[in-house]
Amino acid sequence: MADNVRRSVVLRRRPGGEPRHDDFELVDDEVPTPQPGQVVTRTIWLSIDPYMRGRLWDRKSYAPPVQIGEPMTGETVGEVVASADPAFQPGDVVAGARGWQSHCVSRGTALTKLTRGDAPLSAYLGVLGMPGTTAYSGMKDIGQPKAGETVVVSAASGAVGSVAGQLAKRAGARVVGIAGGPDKCLWVQETLRFDDCVDHRVPHLREALADACPNGVDVYFENVGGAVQEAAFSLLNPFARVVMCGMVAQYNESEPPPGPNLGFVVGKRIRIEGMIVSDKPERFAEWRALASPWVSEGSLHYRETVIEGLENAPGALQLLLRGGNFGKMLVRVGPDHA
Amino acid sequence: MADNVRRSVVLRRRPGGEPRHDDFELVDDEVPTPQPGQVVTRTIWLSIDPYMRGRLWDRKSYAPPVQIGEPMTGETVGEVVASADPAFQPGDVVAGARGWQSHCVSRGTALTKLTRGDAPLSAYLGVLGMPGTTAYSGMKDIGQPKAGETVVVSAASGAVGSVAGQLAKRAGARVVGIAGGPDKCLWVQETLRFDDCVDHRVPHLREALADACPNGVDVYFENVGGAVQEAAFSLLNPFARVVMCGMVAQYNESEPPPGPNLGFVVGKRIRIEGMIVSDKPERFAEWRALASPWVSEGSLHYRETVIEGLENAPGALQLLLRGGNFGKMLVRVGPDHA
Repeated sequence: MADNVRRSVVLRRRPGGEPRHDDFELVDDEVPTPQPGQVVTRTIWLSIDPYMRGRLWDRKSYAPPVQIGEPMTGETVGEVVASADPAFQPGDVVAGARGWQSHCVSRGTALTKLTRGDAPLSAYLGVLGMPGTTAYSGMKDIGQPKAGETVVVSAASGAVGSVAGQLAKRAGARVVGIAGGPDKCLWVQETLRFDDCVDHRVPHLREALADACPNGVDVYFENVGGAVQEAAFSLLNPFARVVMCGMVAQYNESEPPPGPNLGFVVGKRIRIEGMIVSDKPERFAEWRALASPWVSEGSLHYRETVIEGLENAPGALQLLLRGGNFGKMLVRVGPDHA
Repeated sequence: MADNVRRSVVLRRRPGGEPRHDDFELVDDEVPTPQPGQVVTRTIWLSIDPYMRGRLWDRKSYAPPVQIGEPMTGETVGEVVASADPAFQPGDVVAGARGWQSHCVSRGTALTKLTRGDAPLSAYLGVLGMPGTTAYSGMKDIGQPKAGETVVVSAASGAVGSVAGQLAKRAGARVVGIAGGPDKCLWVQETLRFDDCVDHRVPHLREALADACPNGVDVYFENVGGAVQEAAFSLLNPFARVVMCGMVAQYNESEPPPGPNLGFVVGKRIRIEGMIVSDKPERFAEWRALASPWVSEGSLHYRETVIEGLENAPGALQLLLRGGNFGKMLVRVGPDHA
């Protein structure tokens, strides 16, 4: 591909269920020239996250849907190739540009300058980026785990869940993960050091989770929904907090199934609260400052699944929604150094 | 009935659905002599409340179930007839004694002395008592309505709902009630001065409620559950608060039906929180001090349904669970003055 070509993955039609490769198409045009205040970056890493499925439905949500013919949206880490913002120079590495694109145009004010060598660049899309901040804000603002409490985290090996659980461990809680398959469960227990991890594919999930939580559940960090939610809700203690972060199990459903009868919420004085990380923008810098030393010293663990090539971003999203990733899902769009 | 006979309504068997008269029986014994620290009261008013249905199931909840052969529990206002607590004298009028009984034995420390003439004695079981305090605590601690917001209150003519909505009006909110039948709706609009009231018996409840809430719903005070909950939840705005106070529509069900899919809680950052008034005991005195002048001056409105005679308490509970009351449900057990 010539240096002056920009490649974009644009939405061709809205998937009714699982997104497929041919719901998207590749469109090439010229790399734009930045207007005053703008910065053009060459994408190195593209983040693939569950929320992206929500942008494909034509319905009102906290963020507008992606329009047919538009490039998909998504966080990237990239290298500045042209800048009309005096704060940025070609060669600078930045996070914050958005798009399933080989090159992104952004306002400089939306970008965060990174220093090569502080942490692997991909970490700024995962453990130190939006997913890590989501876990931090969810635990700080809603979950508030205390020493001795039991915390359950679904999608425990994922980019958000792995951080949420490690934060609860640091708070002194007993932490139980829920993950899909023995490999993920083993990693959650051995590397993340959760106290236990339950495979959601076992035949009697509720019983298995009850065995792992002999004192009930005080905080449930929800990433999944469905049968996993049902099992966790059935074990909630009085005054439990539920961090409603996501329900990925149903993101491909146009008509989500019924949920739990909420009678128990009254008698047990449960607090169930939804969150979107961007509501508290100050948490991003707070979290980066707090967690960067932990990443450097190796005390905060994470894992990545890397898919090669922008053209495979739709497949990466499909795989993520099936739980086919292990840790943070990333697409490598370009080389680390040009 | 002789002066020294105590009559009690005791639980004979646990109802599987709607409680019936013959699930209870009348048992007479002698009025006890108070032990040191105890006070014996003659019951004037007995309060009948939805939570009582929960005490009839043999299952763990925030309070233990009533046992077979035991008197039913319930708040009363009564007159002291014998006291072994120096703080109380025969003739004193008190709230706080508990039991579906002609005479209750209590520790004096559990009682609140009332002054005849400050307010009708029955008001201490409704607008100034547990239901009023429930509305106050629910709005103060969870709902927190602001001027210009839309607040929806279900069971709007009831003992809790009528106060919850009037408090939201005082906070400057647009208040929409949901009640059963045209008489209740008329009273909610004309006397309580809610901005609108929707009859939950109309064929298209959701549409009717949507018409009454053109700007969506910011606070939902939940007393009912079922289809009423579904309608209110469908209209919640981002950052809405749901005060989960009760779900009376399902209290007779041994197997409650499925509830709402909770996906919307994430995207809209909804807070759904359960409450039991006794968790914040300080609210009782706070509310009595705040609301007593409003009751005296006639600016806080309430309504009562009075059933005559302790033996009709089971029927009063049955009627309450059917929505057959209008305002606070009370049983008159004895005369105001002996």
